[in-house]
Amino acid sequence: MSAHRSRVRLDEDELHPSLRDPVLGSISFLNEVMSRYPGAVSFAPGAPNLAHLADADLSRHIETYLAHVGRTRGVGADRARRLLYEYGPTGGIINDLVAGALRADHAVAVLPDAVVVTVGAQEALLLVLRALFRAGTDELAVSSPCFVGITGAARLLDIALAPIAETPAGLDLDQLTAACARARRRGRRVRAVYVAPDYANPSGSRMSLRDRVRLLNLAERENLLVIEDNVYGFTAPVGEELPALKALDTAGRVVMVGTFAKVCLPGARVGFAVADQPVRNAAGTPRLLAADLTALKSMTTVNTSPICQAVIGGMLLEHGGSLAALGRQRAGVYHRNLALLLDALDRHVAPWAPATVRWNRPGGGFFVLMDLPVPADAALLERCATEYGVLWTPMAQFHLDGGGRHQLRLSCSYLTPELIEEGVARLARFLRSLPASESVGTNRTVEDVTR
Amino acid sequence: MSAHRSRVRLDEDELHPSLRDPVLGSISFLNEVMSRYPGAVSFAPGAPNLAHLADADLSRHIETYLAHVGRTRGVGADRARRLLYEYGPTGGIINDLVAGALRADHAVAVLPDAVVVTVGAQEALLLVLRALFRAGTDELAVSSPCFVGITGAARLLDIALAPIAETPAGLDLDQLTAACARARRRGRRVRAVYVAPDYANPSGSRMSLRDRVRLLNLAERENLLVIEDNVYGFTAPVGEELPALKALDTAGRVVMVGTFAKVCLPGARVGFAVADQPVRNAAGTPRLLAADLTALKSMTTVNTSPICQAVIGGMLLEHGGSLAALGRQRAGVYHRNLALLLDALDRHVAPWAPATVRWNRPGGGFFVLMDLPVPADAALLERCATEYGVLWTPMAQFHLDGGGRHQLRLSCSYLTPELIEEGVARLARFLRSLPASESVGTNRTVEDVTR
Repeated sequence: MSAHRSRVRLDEDELHPSLRDPVLGSISFLNEVMSRYPGAVSFAPGAPNLAHLADADLSRHIETYLAHVGRTRGVGADRARRLLYEYGPTGGIINDLVAGALRADHAVAVLPDAVVVTVGAQEALLLVLRALFRAGTDELAVSSPCFVGITGAARLLDIALAPIAETPAGLDLDQLTAACARARRRGRRVRAVYVAPDYANPSGSRMSLRDRVRLLNLAERENLLVIEDNVYGFTAPVGEELPALKALDTAGRVVMVGTFAKVCLPGARVGFAVADQPVRNAAGTPRLLAADLTALKSMTTVNTSPICQAVIGGMLLEHGGSLAALGRQRAGVYHRNLALLLDALDRHVAPWAPATVRWNRPGGGFFVLMDLPVPADAALLERCATEYGVLWTPMAQFHLDGGGRHQLRLSCSYLTPELIEEGVARLARFLRSLPASESVGTNRTVEDVTR
Repeated sequence: MSAHRSRVRLDEDELHPSLRDPVLGSISFLNEVMSRYPGAVSFAPGAPNLAHLADADLSRHIETYLAHVGRTRGVGADRARRLLYEYGPTGGIINDLVAGALRADHAVAVLPDAVVVTVGAQEALLLVLRALFRAGTDELAVSSPCFVGITGAARLLDIALAPIAETPAGLDLDQLTAACARARRRGRRVRAVYVAPDYANPSGSRMSLRDRVRLLNLAERENLLVIEDNVYGFTAPVGEELPALKALDTAGRVVMVGTFAKVCLPGARVGFAVADQPVRNAAGTPRLLAADLTALKSMTTVNTSPICQAVIGGMLLEHGGSLAALGRQRAGVYHRNLALLLDALDRHVAPWAPATVRWNRPGGGFFVLMDLPVPADAALLERCATEYGVLWTPMAQFHLDGGGRHQLRLSCSYLTPELIEEGVARLARFLRSLPASESVGTNRTVEDVTR
């Protein structure tokens, strides 16, 4: 009987619409291209530098954490170790250490109950979006260009996006105000705005202290929440650190998400959300938004692996509960790489480049953006990989409004100094092969962004 | 300026509706009750037995996996270890080992490309639901009562549920056919049905081989997909094993999800989806549904921790690539515990119990259901915990149609023989305190379920 059944074939049109989003397609394509050119110099991945992984020692980190558990909870070694093997609480087991590091490193004062430990910042974003947004009326304001992790998560949850232009000083706050008014006129509301205040991926833009305060006042005036993604804050040059939005957040308008991937270890997949907003219900039972994120997490991943939490907990303990010193050490490598990348571009490209080839000079973060005279699309990337042995990320996938088509992103985080030099030399040969005159288009350019 | 801002308070009504679902409230309440009565004997958690965790050795499992990587990919020790520290591919790094175990243990023949490694079975369920369901038209058929992980994930994604009654022989397939017809009449469709064919949580029901084949034929006739959750299959008594639906799936109608939590280690948080269905798009580029799940995973957790994958990969390798022997060993403990629980109920409760107190006798799995003459609600659980020192799970949260209000679930998986005996003695005292006559209600009972 069963032999008569015919093989099912699924129709893409019958799958969830987010799967037809060009962003997902771009990511898959990029991964696929990278796997096909293992010998290429890749400016594509925004992954942490390998040099930082040399001091990782999983066993030591875990033992450090277990000794701490034994000391602070007065349990024996076997009982402590069992914590790693069992499910454990959905909201996390290292919340006290995370809260302590937030206090020490960011002057963010929250109780462990306001922290949810997640599978990377990505799960934190997903949970925050799911908790805060209802279908039909609520919009999420994001910069354009924007980190694809937030726009992708919004699409997965059918959340409408309101793109806001970005300047080198971050989100255009007047546009954000206008977007709130526009939504209201249509019987909708901008529920929250996603912001990476320090050296945003991909634009490298950074908000001034004044704009941070303006944003918080705007959030109160317009009754919206701010989702702060703190991921590149640690790359601020010494003496140029600015307070996190959450540290300025006297009104509780900011939900903060973060990750230990960049400073500690990507493979641990540990991030967090800070959600200290009180939620009121009809019964009058008080709770924090963190409790809602935790409830939702029981339906996404149940809990973050306690093994991975122990690895990160151990690293936090080994650094005295603060990641500031380690972050500064990591940041030194990224400052060096960014300077090497810009210097190599100045030497290999600037001397001959037409006005149509230009790039920005961010003060931190992992990324440099470059304008081209031609569309920086999949076909061009393929040609660049085949003929010149160098890879980059097309910028169109980061834009919500059709922009970025003539732009590419260069990441300096993952490469050695030698590969940055070699990669830029190859890139220069590729750029020389392009026509110098700008093709017709109304794309925003790096020039727009950096002026 | 900032000092003038007033503290925000969020209104529950403005959060996503899934957060007002009684199921989430029940889970939080249950966790909270359990934390308040640490001295109670708890028949609540369906967690693996602690005895199984004694042979866990994270360092050894990881080293076993790394040696395998070195051997099979010809990379040095440092390069292999770096795999654990970096992000790694979104779809997983132990897919070949998972595919091998599926072939060895379940006669499920799939290529590694059809496997996505996930953060537990829960993330696999979330991804499968998100990929397959569009808003507005698609319904998910589930048993009632049903595992809350699937109904909760559906609510998080705004997916409509079609409850199907369950018998001790599993889903009522005639009702499923009727639900498909009903949906069609309303311009909708049942897109998929969620099935745990072996000793389902919470009902303990099991599908016969005949019904498994009937379900697959029904799926083809009605053009629906089957989401198979295999979690308790390993508890089948030796000689009574039945093939997984996926092993019978000549038409590719079954998407299988699974977990290594019950047989290997809950704390690793490693599960998987098997999705070998071809997807066609307008461009004609062939891909498997697994690629879509992977694309979505880049927006939920980016990737499953390679550290955790190495732990499970190592365990698989240490058992020759098959979990059958280990699963049988684990199952022995659960058979013993289930027999002890039923025996204790026979001795402590059956001799005096009125007809209104009755329970089922499943052949495997972790759970026994019991009818009470009174509502088994939060207030009753609280009284049972305070006055009798014993905990259980109210069944109403597993029902979609208002049923189960007079029923509770007893889990035998986590307890020692001594605690099962002591717990049932306490439970018997509690049951004696209840009125013998049935309160008025139209709830389905264990009797309905087991006849």
